[in-house]
Amino acid sequence: MSQETQRTWGGRFSEAPNQLAQEFNASWRFDQRLALVDIEGSLAHAAMLAQQGIISPEEGETLRQGLMQVREEILCGKFVWREELEDVHMNVETRLTELVGPVGGKLHTARSRNDQVATDLRLWLRGELTGTLAELEALRKVLVSQAEKYVDPPLILPGYTHLQRAMPVLLSHWFLAYYEMLTRDAGRIQDAQRRLNESPLGAAALAGTGFPIDREFTARQLGFTRPMRNSLDAVGSRDFVLEALAALAIGQLTLSRMAEEIILYTSFEFGFAVLPDAFSTGSSIMPQKKNADIAELIRGKAGRVVGSFVGLATVVKGLPLAYNKDFQEDKEPLFDAVDTYRASLRLLTAMLPGLVWRPEPMAKAAESGFSLATELADYLAHKGLPFREAHHVVGQIVRYCIEGGKELRDLTLQDLQGFHALFEADALELTRLETAIHRRNSQGGTAPLRVREAIEVAKKEIGW
Amino acid sequence: MSQETQRTWGGRFSEAPNQLAQEFNASWRFDQRLALVDIEGSLAHAAMLAQQGIISPEEGETLRQGLMQVREEILCGKFVWREELEDVHMNVETRLTELVGPVGGKLHTARSRNDQVATDLRLWLRGELTGTLAELEALRKVLVSQAEKYVDPPLILPGYTHLQRAMPVLLSHWFLAYYEMLTRDAGRIQDAQRRLNESPLGAAALAGTGFPIDREFTARQLGFTRPMRNSLDAVGSRDFVLEALAALAIGQLTLSRMAEEIILYTSFEFGFAVLPDAFSTGSSIMPQKKNADIAELIRGKAGRVVGSFVGLATVVKGLPLAYNKDFQEDKEPLFDAVDTYRASLRLLTAMLPGLVWRPEPMAKAAESGFSLATELADYLAHKGLPFREAHHVVGQIVRYCIEGGKELRDLTLQDLQGFHALFEADALELTRLETAIHRRNSQGGTAPLRVREAIEVAKKEIGW
Amino acid sequence: MSQETQRTWGGRFSEAPNQLAQEFNASWRFDQRLALVDIEGSLAHAAMLAQQGIISPEEGETLRQGLMQVREEILCGKFVWREELEDVHMNVETRLTELVGPVGGKLHTARSRNDQVATDLRLWLRGELTGTLAELEALRKVLVSQAEKYVDPPLILPGYTHLQRAMPVLLSHWFLAYYEMLTRDAGRIQDAQRRLNESPLGAAALAGTGFPIDREFTARQLGFTRPMRNSLDAVGSRDFVLEALAALAIGQLTLSRMAEEIILYTSFEFGFAVLPDAFSTGSSIMPQKKNADIAELIRGKAGRVVGSFVGLATVVKGLPLAYNKDFQEDKEPLFDAVDTYRASLRLLTAMLPGLVWRPEPMAKAAESGFSLATELADYLAHKGLPFREAHHVVGQIVRYCIEGGKELRDLTLQDLQGFHALFEADALELTRLETAIHRRNSQGGTAPLRVREAIEVAKKEIGW
Amino acid sequence: MSQETQRTWGGRFSEAPNQLAQEFNASWRFDQRLALVDIEGSLAHAAMLAQQGIISPEEGETLRQGLMQVREEILCGKFVWREELEDVHMNVETRLTELVGPVGGKLHTARSRNDQVATDLRLWLRGELTGTLAELEALRKVLVSQAEKYVDPPLILPGYTHLQRAMPVLLSHWFLAYYEMLTRDAGRIQDAQRRLNESPLGAAALAGTGFPIDREFTARQLGFTRPMRNSLDAVGSRDFVLEALAALAIGQLTLSRMAEEIILYTSFEFGFAVLPDAFSTGSSIMPQKKNADIAELIRGKAGRVVGSFVGLATVVKGLPLAYNKDFQEDKEPLFDAVDTYRASLRLLTAMLPGLVWRPEPMAKAAESGFSLATELADYLAHKGLPFREAHHVVGQIVRYCIEGGKELRDLTLQDLQGFHALFEADALELTRLETAIHRRNSQGGTAPLRVREAIEVAKKEIGW
Repeated sequence: MSQETQRTWGGRFSEAPNQLAQEFNASWRFDQRLALVDIEGSLAHAAMLAQQGIISPEEGETLRQGLMQVREEILCGKFVWREELEDVHMNVETRLTELVGPVGGKLHTARSRNDQVATDLRLWLRGELTGTLAELEALRKVLVSQAEKYVDPPLILPGYTHLQRAMPVLLSHWFLAYYEMLTRDAGRIQDAQRRLNESPLGAAALAGTGFPIDREFTARQLGFTRPMRNSLDAVGSRDFVLEALAALAIGQLTLSRMAEEIILYTSFEFGFAVLPDAFSTGSSIMPQKKNADIAELIRGKAGRVVGSFVGLATVVKGLPLAYNKDFQEDKEPLFDAVDTYRASLRLLTAMLPGLVWRPEPMAKAAESGFSLATELADYLAHKGLPFREAHHVVGQIVRYCIEGGKELRDLTLQDLQGFHALFEADALELTRLETAIHRRNSQGGTAPLRVREAIEVAKKEIGW
Repeated sequence: MSQETQRTWGGRFSEAPNQLAQEFNASWRFDQRLALVDIEGSLAHAAMLAQQGIISPEEGETLRQGLMQVREEILCGKFVWREELEDVHMNVETRLTELVGPVGGKLHTARSRNDQVATDLRLWLRGELTGTLAELEALRKVLVSQAEKYVDPPLILPGYTHLQRAMPVLLSHWFLAYYEMLTRDAGRIQDAQRRLNESPLGAAALAGTGFPIDREFTARQLGFTRPMRNSLDAVGSRDFVLEALAALAIGQLTLSRMAEEIILYTSFEFGFAVLPDAFSTGSSIMPQKKNADIAELIRGKAGRVVGSFVGLATVVKGLPLAYNKDFQEDKEPLFDAVDTYRASLRLLTAMLPGLVWRPEPMAKAAESGFSLATELADYLAHKGLPFREAHHVVGQIVRYCIEGGKELRDLTLQDLQGFHALFEADALELTRLETAIHRRNSQGGTAPLRVREAIEVAKKEIGW
Repeated sequence: MSQETQRTWGGRFSEAPNQLAQEFNASWRFDQRLALVDIEGSLAHAAMLAQQGIISPEEGETLRQGLMQVREEILCGKFVWREELEDVHMNVETRLTELVGPVGGKLHTARSRNDQVATDLRLWLRGELTGTLAELEALRKVLVSQAEKYVDPPLILPGYTHLQRAMPVLLSHWFLAYYEMLTRDAGRIQDAQRRLNESPLGAAALAGTGFPIDREFTARQLGFTRPMRNSLDAVGSRDFVLEALAALAIGQLTLSRMAEEIILYTSFEFGFAVLPDAFSTGSSIMPQKKNADIAELIRGKAGRVVGSFVGLATVVKGLPLAYNKDFQEDKEPLFDAVDTYRASLRLLTAMLPGLVWRPEPMAKAAESGFSLATELADYLAHKGLPFREAHHVVGQIVRYCIEGGKELRDLTLQDLQGFHALFEADALELTRLETAIHRRNSQGGTAPLRVREAIEVAKKEIGW
Repeated sequence: MSQETQRTWGGRFSEAPNQLAQEFNASWRFDQRLALVDIEGSLAHAAMLAQQGIISPEEGETLRQGLMQVREEILCGKFVWREELEDVHMNVETRLTELVGPVGGKLHTARSRNDQVATDLRLWLRGELTGTLAELEALRKVLVSQAEKYVDPPLILPGYTHLQRAMPVLLSHWFLAYYEMLTRDAGRIQDAQRRLNESPLGAAALAGTGFPIDREFTARQLGFTRPMRNSLDAVGSRDFVLEALAALAIGQLTLSRMAEEIILYTSFEFGFAVLPDAFSTGSSIMPQKKNADIAELIRGKAGRVVGSFVGLATVVKGLPLAYNKDFQEDKEPLFDAVDTYRASLRLLTAMLPGLVWRPEPMAKAAESGFSLATELADYLAHKGLPFREAHHVVGQIVRYCIEGGKELRDLTLQDLQGFHALFEADALELTRLETAIHRRNSQGGTAPLRVREAIEVAKKEIGW
């Protein structure tokens, strides 16, 4: 049998493939990553064929043993990949046939590469998302444990809006903010995983098959919740990849924000934290440099994951049903996005506990820059002045301080009363950090009491 | 009071805003769309302030009446928007204060524009997604009713892979494929809606407030499932907008695929369907043209929605907590994406039932082009030939036909046996459409029996 | 004449357009922005028709006067736009025909909306890019004038890599870095403008026309360098829009970086500059806030422009020749991107000169944080130590300082010699900012001498 | 010397890098692709150091020989890459030092990895774009030769707008449309190449250097037009990568459109062309399939290249000057985009000449579907009827034909006169393809005369 006729689809072709075209078409370089799930799908398919009497029990057993052997060869790195066999599916099947003889050709009965690859990709992604969720949980646990570590006595830093000091917040509160975001990020990944967990196997090329297959059997065998209900949809849809990419992109964007804050907080200017040496790098020319490369990469890689979503979205636009070769472009962005996000999670999990926080600069920054001005406005509002007017009065106090080079805590009662008669002695306390931090004690606020409550809730949520 | 001091934040400023800057900053031109939900949020906030004794019952009632009056002015188009008031919040509050006097200034007690705008946007989006889901359901119903209309006797057209005729499928099966896709699209929107339905109100600027507010009260009042648990997160996150944009983008991509197929099917070359005049347009220069403009726009608008997701993703990348002005860029892409997707849904719902399908060209196309070749391969496989070999044999039959200008149904038994001895008389039937279409009767397949089952399932699902 | 037959393309249609469809199709709400260039194109076309004898001279004159009158009505805001006329072209032509009678209908001879809209969009974009280039030049001039203002005596701030202080640089050097970037941004816009300046007019619907038109005449009249050479290409390509969008996106990304640095430099932590009140805004709840809203918006709007490019790129993907209705989606992203970039340029031009730079914190920051460590490494390398070793020695000096809470300038000669014997007395000078800044005097470096040279070059370039 | 101190920047670090972090940071897996240009840059730098007396002539020669030897090792695949050395630069330099001893450490004098990598990337990209331009020219030549092949006798197919048959065009005209587009695509790549061809070398880390380097020398040596004028810009900008990515994305979008048309034209429904077997693939289940996989991949890969642009654009957004580690994310998308576009060009160049065009179905399609209706409208307009009215009359003729199942060529003179009295005998000829095709003879139109002219112009342009 010539090479040409060995091809899966060679029968009606009179000319061998162009070399360039073959390389362009070939996907085994990246889709070999699906080899184990491909075999998993084939095992279920072969078992079903035998159960349904489409092949004999002996044939079924032969296929099973052959597939296990291929699996073994892949696991121990002995499997030889062949370019001319295009993809993971044909590489596996061809090796299978070498091992078990012509019966290997029966494996593809009542199946097409179209439903096969859709099954493989769903299996692979389901598994990776499980791993992703475990890593997300590990990072969420780190956030909670860091929050707990710094809550008593409370470490205080400025909270920012517009990157301007706004009001003091607890470092623990900051950790918990990311905890909340990551919880939602995990929720999106769970939803994506749940929605994709349906079996395309048995849709065959696009229309189903005439063989008496049992799709419930293979679905069950492979841990899918049910067979997909429409064969065109089963092989012609990639929304499950897009949904996963969107969830990963949104997740990486969350991490990019945390990374940005780590970069800021470890700069000389902020000086709130020191990076562990093990997670920093230096400069080839400037001996003093200690750069937050890991955080920068995590920030930058948000572009990569967003780009992956865009890439596949553009691919899918305007594609008619059912399968089109364009779908081959779904794998690389997905693999890359999953790897990127998972690595970023692992690195933050390893790096965050090593950050050395510096209480003094943090507290000093939290106190200065007028971040307690709102307390004075609230004070006046509390005494009955409409908030808008109170705000205006305190704005004038701030301007006065800036022009005179003063901080709020430098003001006397007399000073304050010069701006509004409602000020009394108790107003002075509000300009001190230690007093003020306890005041933001509304539900979800940054007062230590509230943050301790939030830590308890989070601990329960993650099963501590 | 000068204009400068009328500004929300004028107290510490000694210079009036630059005119250019004011225009650039102002968001009222688009965020006025939030006016009604802004008032809804304020009503809940005012009621809570009164209940908690932060303002008096009389003040609460005054605010309520004032807000209702502002609402009335907006609804009947009498409200005058002012550029120098920047945004919807200040426009509403300023008008309120004009109506009720200084007490209007008390409404902003224990609240910031940061939690206010986050509340508004969640309320608005929640409502729009409810509308979107209703429109999705209407379109899904149309798909099911079209599937039912054409199932008996079954309209058959070629199913395509790679835009090459692959196997015949029922038109009803095609409709149901999109039904499945739209069901998942709806699932994503529901998930987004559920996840965003938490109340940021009470987070104030970023850290909570010292006033004794009741966040459960306002959350309940506004139909949120609970208050958000962390104030920094509440005002500093926009993942809920990104998730909605991603769901809308994926949804619009589904529609772009259906639109593409409508464009193809109504072309002269395919000729499977005729567009209703009411949904076509002509050419200013070519009198014969009847263009599928609506479908083309729906296809094209996928770009728009994907672009909106990308736009906001790029905005969010690397932003530190909590609120940053960059977030103002969240509204226009969201408004545009919601409008685009909803209009596309409505148009397809109105247009699909008007398509006139042409059974003869469809059947003729389904039968020719060797789309029944797989039947012959399955036949041989069924007789025990490994599928790979069966495939190869039939590939040679196809090549023989093409070279001789024949269709499969032109072949005699003798012809077939010339290619493989396993062929017997019953093989000839498989080359006829009427026989073949019933054979793809695996679960989820295109056999009329299966499609009728699927229609029943779908009808139950949508409540018929 | 009924409304239906008034439609441009009504002849073969038996059913009036669906109301929803008409709204979806209609583009006049945004393409009315092309009205003046549409008339400009029509004037050239009419003049050509008359010159070629396709219409009589009198008819040509009637059309010209009619078009001038429509133009007048548009300019003084009296023109009434009609939804059912779909787009700017039909609105203008219909009004023209009302004014001049049936001869109005001759204007469309040998023209289609396809070449008409391509012509309009090129004319419009060409004009806008001219405006954009003028605004870019204005900003580049501000950068040069600011560089000049602060060069003598030189204002010094830390240069950053990885947001860690790296080496001191002149503020003027920083301004000139952006000057260089903006010069390239302008180059891209010029290239886009030059490449698009070809005339599609006369391509008609897609194939050219049988009328004896003169495309050179209209091209010349409209300031195009030549007629486009292929009619399918002329009406079927939108690469010119994509190129402009890409140039604008890259330009806005440059601005986003400058905006980020302004936000950082005006934060409390950096404290290098103070924003003019006229370009800042405050907070509705925190009286002390002074936010760099303008810079934040400029930063955020990079997302918007990138999203516009993505949107159109996705639209164009896989579209067959020639015109498709999907192209209608080219205008809104283009209009929005042009407006966004131009406004951002104008705002930076107005805002930058108002920044108040604070020499002392800048110099203090430039000197501390070991940003002069490289000087010591260079010193050793100069004395013959391989640079890699020199780097290592100084790295140890830095570690010693950090552990002992010292700055480099605190070190004695003895200290230095403790690390390497090559250090001599002249090494001490290198740890002082005033000495060090003059040392980076390679071409393009930050030494004041070099920066003054660069200012002279830039001044010549912008014509001062 | 311990491993830790072998690191480029180890001096001030007391802890070894975390293993995970090291892998995350390492770029040698992809940036090894820069090895040859890295050495090219080092050769120029070493020569300059020697010429300027910064190192001795002997040292210069030693470095040169060492670098040549490393180059040799890389070329013959003997070079061993080491993960812990992070990137291509340190791998090369470390090997150099192993070969030549401590003098290897002098190569990095007056240089930083920041200017080194910027230099490398510009050199690499410049070379790749030269290759890209050659491949673009090869494809453009194929387009012209195909246009010439089919112009006499002219092969005619329908021209489409909205994928509806609009007017007949020459196949040669279609080829030349893409010729024009690709010419502009090439123009953009040339502009990008020209603009990036400046030398960052000598900018050092960010501020220039104190060594007496000669940047003109290295720029000249490396074929750059000049040294970049500002050191912060030289190491801190990636607009050159973004511009190249945008040009590649726009180019790939052009190819996606041609690919789409090939897919359509080789479908059964269109049937205009047959793909060469060598560029088609079959199906694993459907023996009859002959799929345009290559064209589908080219179409789909537009998503990939657009995604690469988006990825880097998102990375760059809001990054402060100068170098940030995020920039490491510039290489993979660039490498991938260049490879993708170049492979797509090569494949189309190889595939297009093998397409077998089928004159009869093309002509039949061109003639039917009323694509000659505009001729009749032009006829009436020529006789003085305003075009809008002529259009309307012919619209009614078309509707009459459709309702009666006729084509235009079936109409008699009497039929025509029933619609308008201006029709005379010569109108009948216009309904025949052979006559009509010659009429679109305006400049740039599809009349054979015009197309032959255009072929001559193109041949001259490409140097034939």
